[in-house]
Amino acid sequence: MDEHLKRQYEELLCSYSREKREDHLYAAQQLSKWMMEQRIPPEEIISMHAAAVKKMLPDVPPVVVDMFDLLIEIMIGYGIAYKEHETLIDRQR
Amino acid sequence: MDEHLKRQYEELLCSYSREKREDHLYAAQQLSKWMMEQRIPPEEIISMHAAAVKKMLPDVPPVVVDMFDLLIEIMIGYGIAYKEHETLIDRQR
Repeated sequence: MDEHLKRQYEELLCSYSREKREDHLYAAQQLSKWMMEQRIPPEEIISMHAAAVKKMLPDVPPVVVDMFDLLIEIMIGYGIAYKEHETLIDRQR
Repeated sequence: MDEHLKRQYEELLCSYSREKREDHLYAAQQLSKWMMEQRIPPEEIISMHAAAVKKMLPDVPPVVVDMFDLLIEIMIGYGIAYKEHETLIDRQR
């Protein structure tokens, strides 16, 4: 995962955790579009989110971070479907 | 979201948080397959996960739960791509 993206995501999480503003959600939508263009699978995003939570909130109960493992496992299937989708789209171009 | 699925996911999270076992990860993979068959979009899974964390760990800092909003927002784009993929697959059948 790109270091710049990680930093950008951490900054967005930090801003949103300070103040829940609509423009932060809009920024997340824009980031989503960019991530999809870069073909980043959903499980990598969950993994990045878990790492950011752990880094930003070092006192969070470890179980909260561990629980992301199951979410990552579930998203792997969706990631495979996403990759297939991109391949189908490419073929139709 | 199906109540039975929510309960099943909470139980799996609970088991995994007590003991990080490989068979829980395998159960998550099986659950993922079932969720995909049911065409549950990824953002709904994040939302279910956030609700389960909040329910299971009521003392968790609220910011941890709030941060899931950004993850949900990001997953919406992937959910749209996933829906398109299912439509394409259906058409090819």
